[in-house]
Amino acid sequence: MPQGRYVEDEFDRDTDYIEDRITEDGRDGWPVEPDRYRLVVSRACPWANRAIIVRRLLGLEDVLGMGVCGPTHDARSWTFDLDPDGRDPVLGIERLQEAFLARYPDYPKGITVPAVVDVPTGQVVTNDFPQITLDLSTQWTKWHREGAPDLYPDHLRAEIDEINEWVYTEVNNGVYRCGFAGRQASYERAYDRLFAALDRLEERLTQRRYLVGEQITEADVRLFTTLVRFDPVYHGHFKANRNKLSEMPALWGYARDLFQTPGFGDTIDFAHIKAHYYVVHSDINPTGVVPKGPDLSGWLTAHGREQLGGRPFGDGTPPPPPRPEETVPAGHTVTA
Amino acid sequence: MPQGRYVEDEFDRDTDYIEDRITEDGRDGWPVEPDRYRLVVSRACPWANRAIIVRRLLGLEDVLGMGVCGPTHDARSWTFDLDPDGRDPVLGIERLQEAFLARYPDYPKGITVPAVVDVPTGQVVTNDFPQITLDLSTQWTKWHREGAPDLYPDHLRAEIDEINEWVYTEVNNGVYRCGFAGRQASYERAYDRLFAALDRLEERLTQRRYLVGEQITEADVRLFTTLVRFDPVYHGHFKANRNKLSEMPALWGYARDLFQTPGFGDTIDFAHIKAHYYVVHSDINPTGVVPKGPDLSGWLTAHGREQLGGRPFGDGTPPPPPRPEETVPAGHTVTA
Repeated sequence: MPQGRYVEDEFDRDTDYIEDRITEDGRDGWPVEPDRYRLVVSRACPWANRAIIVRRLLGLEDVLGMGVCGPTHDARSWTFDLDPDGRDPVLGIERLQEAFLARYPDYPKGITVPAVVDVPTGQVVTNDFPQITLDLSTQWTKWHREGAPDLYPDHLRAEIDEINEWVYTEVNNGVYRCGFAGRQASYERAYDRLFAALDRLEERLTQRRYLVGEQITEADVRLFTTLVRFDPVYHGHFKANRNKLSEMPALWGYARDLFQTPGFGDTIDFAHIKAHYYVVHSDINPTGVVPKGPDLSGWLTAHGREQLGGRPFGDGTPPPPPRPEETVPAGHTVTA
Repeated sequence: MPQGRYVEDEFDRDTDYIEDRITEDGRDGWPVEPDRYRLVVSRACPWANRAIIVRRLLGLEDVLGMGVCGPTHDARSWTFDLDPDGRDPVLGIERLQEAFLARYPDYPKGITVPAVVDVPTGQVVTNDFPQITLDLSTQWTKWHREGAPDLYPDHLRAEIDEINEWVYTEVNNGVYRCGFAGRQASYERAYDRLFAALDRLEERLTQRRYLVGEQITEADVRLFTTLVRFDPVYHGHFKANRNKLSEMPALWGYARDLFQTPGFGDTIDFAHIKAHYYVVHSDINPTGVVPKGPDLSGWLTAHGREQLGGRPFGDGTPPPPPRPEETVPAGHTVTA
């Protein structure tokens, strides 16, 4: 997860990443190649969740492996403690930090997911989360599955970029601005700003099924990963509690529609999500007790959003179910 | 607020109070007399809130004054910091502790509200909260207002006592058992037990308007003071988050019905309630930031419970509005 701190009373997310790109032309020295890179994620982290979803939607599982870190960690950040011997089976490392240090022995910044690691050298290529998903869409096209949707269509890019920037500052990061506020006044400003943004989204999504155009795009992926965490974590833990997401009809319908779309809900591990926030943020939740709620059964209820038109995958098709080894355990999510 | 601690993994509320009673016959040395005693409360505290409501419903304002402590306090407990010079105008003390020490110079137990203080001597007579409200109903009858309801009718006492005991252990105290759990396992047991109880109440209150009989009784007062704090505090702060109260139709209708009944909602100071829990429990909420939510406007919406029959005050009448000096500031509650 990207890191940040409070500067002059306002949460300031570090936006200083390793910005190399993996491209078709290999201009940064990292050409797109099957079986060369490994995407390292945590299912807890909303920024990594974007990459998990996009990889699934585009069907890149065959060419880009995925290492999954456990939901909780200490100050040295993410570990492969879910793997049987505590090591990623491909990279052979115990901590994601090792791949950052392989690249830069004195790496001074946050050890964050998502990160893409070059398997032969064990070095992190990039942890620049907003670029990673766009490059999966635009640079890896040769390896997309048949029927993969175009999540970043040329003619919609300006609109997607614009809404992505606004959603990032107001919503994706807005929940953190609430939760990490150390003073009442900065918290209240953050709360007002967040709910003003959610009210705008509620209005926008009352009339239209997706954020941009008539099918799912990168913009929906980025909003979804925050919305799916809202009631389980942000509402209570981050005090974003004017109302639950489930009390905003359009947003709740929109979130459920996506959750029920192959490639979205099947990437969600609510157990990891809750454990991460409630355990790692010991300054907010000193006991480390993880709430048993909320009741998640509502995520599978009918949303009626089909009436608004649109086709989730445009001319494409839904992805097949996740592979067995990448399937979220039934007890960690909501199942029919 | 009564105090407690965790013993062997389970929250154990101290139930060791000063148990003298103020009675018609003065058997404990404290006869009922107008203008002799002062009820000390905090509007934050659910146990004190019972006494505030019962005093209002019975119209005892003329004979039993009320001192109101501020919502937050340090280890020496409740203070009169809301009063202009930080002293209760009748008792002349800054801290409720002084009245406990006037009675017992080495008083070793919790300084709690509600407490009834003998004005001439400045000594606490009783802080035995379950008995205080029953005695207001049964011993102060001579001073009840005309039209005061019978909150503890003879023929219903057995049923009221039984449900009160169950509501106390499972609900009133059940929310604390969740919130004060220091370990995951004890929290989860407490959560299951609490919501099992709420589910039973939901069922009971689907068919009937009040807990016992056809009108409001002491049993409703005791359940209400927990329900009204549920969404603002217990849901997030105590992690009682399977669902909000507002997601349980019968309980939410019941709570709104009472809230809108004179003598109930007009005693509720949501600002004090939230400030108390979120500031005083620094072990649960180290930043001391008080959530701005939830949106409270729902409390005034139509509940439709009249259809279930019953008459809130039986053959009696509602109390008049609170006196100006005892009116909760508009910004602290929800107003039409």
